[in-house]
Amino acid sequence: MNPVEIIIKKRDGLELTDEELRFFINSYTAGNIPDYQAAALLMAIFIRGLSPHETLTLTKSMLYSGTVIDLSHIPEQKIGKHSTGGVGDKTSLIIAPIALAAGVKVPQISGRGLGHTGGTLDKMESIPGFNTRLGIEDFKRIMQDPGALIIGQTSNIAPADKLLYSLRDVVGAVPSIPLITASIMSKKLAEGTDGLVLDIKTGSGAFMKSYEDAKKLAESLKGTAEGFGKKCIALLTEMSQPLGYKSGNWYEVHESIDILRGEYIEDLCEISFALSGAMIMLGGKAGSIEEGIELSRKLVASGEAYDWFVKIIKAQGGDVETVKHPEAYPVSKIRESLSAAETGYISAINGYEIGMALVELGAGRVKKEDEIDHKAGLFLKAKVGDHFNEGQEIGYLDGDDPVKIEAAYKRILGAISFSAEKPPKLEYIKEIIY
Amino acid sequence: MNPVEIIIKKRDGLELTDEELRFFINSYTAGNIPDYQAAALLMAIFIRGLSPHETLTLTKSMLYSGTVIDLSHIPEQKIGKHSTGGVGDKTSLIIAPIALAAGVKVPQISGRGLGHTGGTLDKMESIPGFNTRLGIEDFKRIMQDPGALIIGQTSNIAPADKLLYSLRDVVGAVPSIPLITASIMSKKLAEGTDGLVLDIKTGSGAFMKSYEDAKKLAESLKGTAEGFGKKCIALLTEMSQPLGYKSGNWYEVHESIDILRGEYIEDLCEISFALSGAMIMLGGKAGSIEEGIELSRKLVASGEAYDWFVKIIKAQGGDVETVKHPEAYPVSKIRESLSAAETGYISAINGYEIGMALVELGAGRVKKEDEIDHKAGLFLKAKVGDHFNEGQEIGYLDGDDPVKIEAAYKRILGAISFSAEKPPKLEYIKEIIY
Repeated sequence: MNPVEIIIKKRDGLELTDEELRFFINSYTAGNIPDYQAAALLMAIFIRGLSPHETLTLTKSMLYSGTVIDLSHIPEQKIGKHSTGGVGDKTSLIIAPIALAAGVKVPQISGRGLGHTGGTLDKMESIPGFNTRLGIEDFKRIMQDPGALIIGQTSNIAPADKLLYSLRDVVGAVPSIPLITASIMSKKLAEGTDGLVLDIKTGSGAFMKSYEDAKKLAESLKGTAEGFGKKCIALLTEMSQPLGYKSGNWYEVHESIDILRGEYIEDLCEISFALSGAMIMLGGKAGSIEEGIELSRKLVASGEAYDWFVKIIKAQGGDVETVKHPEAYPVSKIRESLSAAETGYISAINGYEIGMALVELGAGRVKKEDEIDHKAGLFLKAKVGDHFNEGQEIGYLDGDDPVKIEAAYKRILGAISFSAEKPPKLEYIKEIIY
Repeated sequence: MNPVEIIIKKRDGLELTDEELRFFINSYTAGNIPDYQAAALLMAIFIRGLSPHETLTLTKSMLYSGTVIDLSHIPEQKIGKHSTGGVGDKTSLIIAPIALAAGVKVPQISGRGLGHTGGTLDKMESIPGFNTRLGIEDFKRIMQDPGALIIGQTSNIAPADKLLYSLRDVVGAVPSIPLITASIMSKKLAEGTDGLVLDIKTGSGAFMKSYEDAKKLAESLKGTAEGFGKKCIALLTEMSQPLGYKSGNWYEVHESIDILRGEYIEDLCEISFALSGAMIMLGGKAGSIEEGIELSRKLVASGEAYDWFVKIIKAQGGDVETVKHPEAYPVSKIRESLSAAETGYISAINGYEIGMALVELGAGRVKKEDEIDHKAGLFLKAKVGDHFNEGQEIGYLDGDDPVKIEAAYKRILGAISFSAEKPPKLEYIKEIIY
């Protein structure tokens, strides 16, 4: 087969065969097709699109470029979760112990933070001793007992995606629904799950800002998962303000512990319980999402979910005392109080700006190599719809460096918009597709 | 400036600024933008297109990546000619001496043959001693006296085009009207001419097979030439059969000499005189193309054009005795007669197949490094509309190798279609745009 003929076919808007896509991806991964030809194909795919069948074939080619973990030795249902990411999104930490308490196992391969979104791995590593670099044998063992884990991507999972993702980034081919679908699914399907719950964020702080695009992505991801015979539920959720009150690595672990110990923060809890409810239903432990949500609330209230959280932390080497006594965690040198810049109702909170302020504070990365300050973070009690008077405290910032705090402070205040009229209440779960 | 942002802009169908196009081309030529980013931009341009203004800017960036020859010391008008190429197209050899005889100077930077089309440089080099590798000082001298030349592209002419052309070839971005326009014009405008006549071929043997595409290309080329303040006339001409009777390198020189000595072959003469007529008009030596055509016929009939041909050959070191006594040229070892495969009217002659048969015969190249047999060639007296009986001679093939002749023979017979009905007469000049 000739790579140029494959590029020309897609350039002219024609559908590629399974053999053509497989040949191109395999040859590229093996180093037999140069970057410039892959770049041309990516651009042609970006503009011309891929059919659902082509998207499925591309995903298969990328998935089978590496290892697919086999968890068939585990009798329970294994349900994964994927979120398109947002500021303050700590749901992974909350839903895994809830689902596990309900009898559903949860393998999670997560990423690190880069740019305005945090990464689950960085959050977990704020717990002393917590090891996210586990091999496949450890993965299989921990999936048996306790049955949930959060690890980083190993080099043998979807190597084609690693190559293609880096290339997409430098040739302007990132926000394409079929390419995003294949990238996400080639990694998620390697986890060995029986089903998948998707949290597709929409709103100002989301990757997919428009509701229409978010829905298209949800449908593409769900169709692809089902093409692999996996059960799938997609939730379209609100991301027009940070999720919960706390953002930053240890801050988010701390807030997750608080939730699992019974604290109630509306946006964070409603979205977390909807996700865990969907996972429990897919895992066969509830007859409907509503039942799954009800069960989630009970498992938190009874303390069972918290107990499983402690077991998950312990299984990956994390210090259990830190989890049990979060108030004893090291604190930043400076705590700077944040005050409302005007009087009125909060009308919007720009998630991108909040995320970038956290990066400035040291809680995130600009470059892959950057070190992270785990204890730095933001507590923002202001939510869209809340009323504040000018000068009234809306939260605080924790950091070690007064210059960084000053920069983050300005950026956060700039991210919060006020209005004289009370805005309509945010709908946290916009749509459930199943 | 960020190359990724430029790619994204074009990917989304937006118009690029002059600065953006110039930055991208200059950085790519300097080696500061990698091939994969250029490949992505080329594919985005291929699919999204370029506006006439963007095409002009791209052409300028490519032209000024190298030398532009300054012929302002020559008082006469300098008129160039460009053809999109076809089998048996030897008009460059015929029109240069005609225009020169009329007082119009003709600089020509030409190419070599590759694939099914022959190259003017290869044809000229079939004349012993003829030197196509001249530097800029020789170029300027010969443009003063005798005033026309045919040389190869020097490395300092449009280096950006060389890089981009090679890349387009391997990423499936060749047949794009704005990219073809910029590629052709960045080389033609380096010749230092005051005006340009374009011969845009259409029909089965042409690069642009559809009339509509050929016309779009003609208009894009003419618009770009005029954007540089150059006078330009575009002719859309027939290429559904080889031009003239003879194809092959020396064969085409020989037929050109015959034409300049007064032989008349309808398709070749009508197209050549229309081109030289347009050049004479653009050069101010005729009031209209028709007057220019009339003058062309007179200059051939009087022998003046032939005399200038001899001077052109001599100025570039070519052996004048060869031109004066073409019958003395070395002949091939084998001459194989071609007979009509059926009885009927010739309805079509596939130029691509004829061209590839010539390559098999040794008269052309598959790879750049291939050696050429200058004396090998095809004499095909069959023209669309002619009637032949099965077995009647329609021409002959000359070559040294019986195996190659056999292969070429089959391919040529396969390229000729017959019909019981007489097809409509071909219109050689389909349209003149000025």
